[in-house]
Amino acid sequence: MTDIWLKSLLTRTPQEGFELAITLSRRGVKYTQPDAAVLQELRSEYANSAEGLTAASQVVAINFQTVAAANDYWRKP
Amino acid sequence: MTDIWLKSLLTRTPQEGFELAITLSRRGVKYTQPDAAVLQELRSEYANSAEGLTAASQVVAINFQTVAAANDYWRKP
Amino acid sequence: MTDIWLKSLLTRTPQEGFELAITLSRRGVKYTQPDAAVLQELRSEYANSAEGLTAASQVVAINFQTVAAANDYWRKP
Amino acid sequence: MTDIWLKSLLTRTPQEGFELAITLSRRGVKYTQPDAAVLQELRSEYANSAEGLTAASQVVAINFQTVAAANDYWRKP
Amino acid sequence: MTDIWLKSLLTRTPQEGFELAITLSRRGVKYTQPDAAVLQELRSEYANSAEGLTAASQVVAINFQTVAAANDYWRKP
Amino acid sequence: MTDIWLKSLLTRTPQEGFELAITLSRRGVKYTQPDAAVLQELRSEYANSAEGLTAASQVVAINFQTVAAANDYWRKP
Repeated sequence: MTDIWLKSLLTRTPQEGFELAITLSRRGVKYTQPDAAVLQELRSEYANSAEGLTAASQVVAINFQTVAAANDYWRKP
Repeated sequence: MTDIWLKSLLTRTPQEGFELAITLSRRGVKYTQPDAAVLQELRSEYANSAEGLTAASQVVAINFQTVAAANDYWRKP
Repeated sequence: MTDIWLKSLLTRTPQEGFELAITLSRRGVKYTQPDAAVLQELRSEYANSAEGLTAASQVVAINFQTVAAANDYWRKP
Repeated sequence: MTDIWLKSLLTRTPQEGFELAITLSRRGVKYTQPDAAVLQELRSEYANSAEGLTAASQVVAINFQTVAAANDYWRKP
Repeated sequence: MTDIWLKSLLTRTPQEGFELAITLSRRGVKYTQPDAAVLQELRSEYANSAEGLTAASQVVAINFQTVAAANDYWRKP
Repeated sequence: MTDIWLKSLLTRTPQEGFELAITLSRRGVKYTQPDAAVLQELRSEYANSAEGLTAASQVVAINFQTVAAANDYWRKP
């Protein structure tokens, strides 16, 4: 990919970190399937499947581990 | 999302940390499927499936790793 | 939940730590499905499925990582 | 369980650590399904399934992370 | 394999690190199935499956944890 | 097992570390199913399945985390 979408893992708040984890999870998908129309269709599929949503939440959890460690868990206010 | 739901990863006790891990797991789902009615329906589905419950417990375990590390495992009383 | 079930991640021995990891895994399930009768039925289902047992063992392994780190791997006797 | 099966995570060599990881994985199963006859039958099932074997290998990999960290990766000879 | 494809885990930016994580994930597949024609066919299969894409994204997330840790999370600009 | 197959987690290069991660993944399978003929047959099965290959790549990724940490990510040239 030629566009720059990830400049830093540092975020101001844990919530922004969680949202970055979601971005990372979606990008992981997009590198494999870059076609936006296909993604849109598949998205509506797993967004209505209990199993698909749990699997998506697991990828977010793994990426959130990375982002949280990068930010030293936002321990300092 | 515009509401603030995650201000800190720090909790007073391990149990509160575990409950935060559950919140994180559910939020991971909610970002993908924001429709509360759909979520409610799917929830009753996987809450009655052995496989679904184990998968949900796994996401909680991964998020609990993050929360526990953030709190230095609540080692100091 | 109002009952206190998790006061500390520290255990005296690795085996007690492993057993705490099992408790954490089951609690992860119980927060999603609090009904004991449903849990009992589902339990007998996955306890007789190779796939279900391996998945359960994986959740235990993830929680054991957390408990073991909390106890600094019980390195000091 | 009343028998003592896990006294330490420390092993002399990485290979012994890997074998301890296998023990941990099997114990994770045994706590859920203590009946040896049922386990034997299920074992022959997943030992002949590509998916089952990969899943078992994944649990071993997760437990090996724990054992390897406990032993500081056997860096010192 | 005789070709050299992985000289370092260090990258200049987080995004390059993410792309290295994708390379690692694909290599993990290629060691098991080296036949490029088979890979191409299977790729079009899972690239059009919600479940397959989520699973692929999960492997990327795990490898990204490794690459990010290696780079100390690109904390220093 | 009586043969010695794992003497150290240290490797000279990241690529050798990745290949060690593959060895660990295969050994995890072999401890469960030691019969080489059965393994060969199952291998050709999952090597031709998108899902099976992704699952195999995930186990490699987990083992690579361990090997990379053991080698301090090969940071020093």
